[in-house]
Amino acid sequence: MKITIIGVGLIGGSMALDLKKRGFTTKVFGVDNCTNNLQKAKQIGFIDDIKTLEEGVNLADIVILAVPVDAAIKILPKILDKLNNQIVIDVCSVKKSLIDSVKNHKKRKQYVACHPMAGTEFFGPEAAVSELFDNKVNIICNREENCQEAIEKTEKLFTCLKMKLIYMNGEKHDKHVAYVSHISHISSFALAITVLDVEKEEKQIFNLASGGFDSTVRLAKSSKNMWSPIFQNNSENILEVLDNYIFQLEKIKSSIKNNNNSEIIEFIEKANQIKKII
Amino acid sequence: MKITIIGVGLIGGSMALDLKKRGFTTKVFGVDNCTNNLQKAKQIGFIDDIKTLEEGVNLADIVILAVPVDAAIKILPKILDKLNNQIVIDVCSVKKSLIDSVKNHKKRKQYVACHPMAGTEFFGPEAAVSELFDNKVNIICNREENCQEAIEKTEKLFTCLKMKLIYMNGEKHDKHVAYVSHISHISSFALAITVLDVEKEEKQIFNLASGGFDSTVRLAKSSKNMWSPIFQNNSENILEVLDNYIFQLEKIKSSIKNNNNSEIIEFIEKANQIKKII
Repeated sequence: MKITIIGVGLIGGSMALDLKKRGFTTKVFGVDNCTNNLQKAKQIGFIDDIKTLEEGVNLADIVILAVPVDAAIKILPKILDKLNNQIVIDVCSVKKSLIDSVKNHKKRKQYVACHPMAGTEFFGPEAAVSELFDNKVNIICNREENCQEAIEKTEKLFTCLKMKLIYMNGEKHDKHVAYVSHISHISSFALAITVLDVEKEEKQIFNLASGGFDSTVRLAKSSKNMWSPIFQNNSENILEVLDNYIFQLEKIKSSIKNNNNSEIIEFIEKANQIKKII
Repeated sequence: MKITIIGVGLIGGSMALDLKKRGFTTKVFGVDNCTNNLQKAKQIGFIDDIKTLEEGVNLADIVILAVPVDAAIKILPKILDKLNNQIVIDVCSVKKSLIDSVKNHKKRKQYVACHPMAGTEFFGPEAAVSELFDNKVNIICNREENCQEAIEKTEKLFTCLKMKLIYMNGEKHDKHVAYVSHISHISSFALAITVLDVEKEEKQIFNLASGGFDSTVRLAKSSKNMWSPIFQNNSENILEVLDNYIFQLEKIKSSIKNNNNSEIIEFIEKANQIKKII
């Protein structure tokens, strides 16, 4: 099985690493608009050869599109235009706008919309790590729009990555990830800025940052090239979550302002129920 | 050196574990208003004997007060009333209100206000772990109000716990921790509730929670008995941080609503600067 990775960063690179290591593929081609990243990817060894988009699509059995969602929306129709019997899988965090962009393409059946839910706050080819996807969830969207062969190949690929498979439509996906992923990033970005702003005058503040701070702010290191298009392509859902989140913050703010112990206790007790989940 | 731990939970227990293991103390007495916790602490082995408050204070060279800040405000004056030459150290996350509560006590010099900045989201004696404090920061507040002997003993104790020592006044401490610790907890509590609220109708949502969500919401499991008094005793600083935090969230909300790419990029770039810190 030959694979072409378009976008040789954290996600594409981590997929290639394990697909090679686990014998799913014998040859991985890399396509990227950044020559430097392609050379690094080849050096690290998760791609075997550097190709143009056209060559990469022609040579592959499976094309993996692992670029930010705004770039994916531009590139996906071009890939479909070039397809014979290959299939193409994308791995973006937002699905509806991308699926809609190729809705009427005659090769639509050969494109499988996926979201392997795994990552770190790092990016670029050096960020690629083995076992990133093990035991995590991959969401396949709008499966009914695919041909049987495309779904089967995709399922085999993600099973090789040891992922659990979940199926839902793109719209539902985008709402869910706004709650369990996108808002966490916004919350981290905003927290980082809040603390950085005060740090200007309070130099010592970061000596004090302990484990709790680190873990809530870790995601604030995430890539602008990836996250800005996510916020723009999932704005409706994100704005809904943000409204709910700010509402909760205003609520606890008012309880603290009024020194209302029973309200504060109730707030924490409600939040504690997250224990049943994580 | 004999030590009495008042409050045999995560912090008191973790301190006792390493102070025993590293030979700082030969005997640890436990005091707690929960008999069950005392028995567990003895079973685990980080206390040797169960004592009443009066006995514990009498028998110890160093008394460690490791209870929530509201309880500490009630108990600290009673401990000082009973002191001969022993010293007492507290480990609360809020300092000014506690320091103020014994401002004019004739034994004030023997009380050292401390905040070892380490913890987990778990609590109770079973949560006690070895090496919790290694390489973390302990803040000693208002050192100038202590006698030399009290400071020396305290520094030795925290050095044995492998902590870095920082000195500042209680007021400054409370402002700093509002930014680097308290707001992280509020942000996690609010995020947990936001997601739990939508989960009622969207059962599948938690299948999707991946690494990023876990780390931002981890703190939402924290104890209401510890955190409600912190919010109340540090309300002024927390309300300031909350206002700044909500301001940042409203700002990014408006940028997303207006689909303003350059503002979103600027927001993420600013947050990314946290890289220089963590």
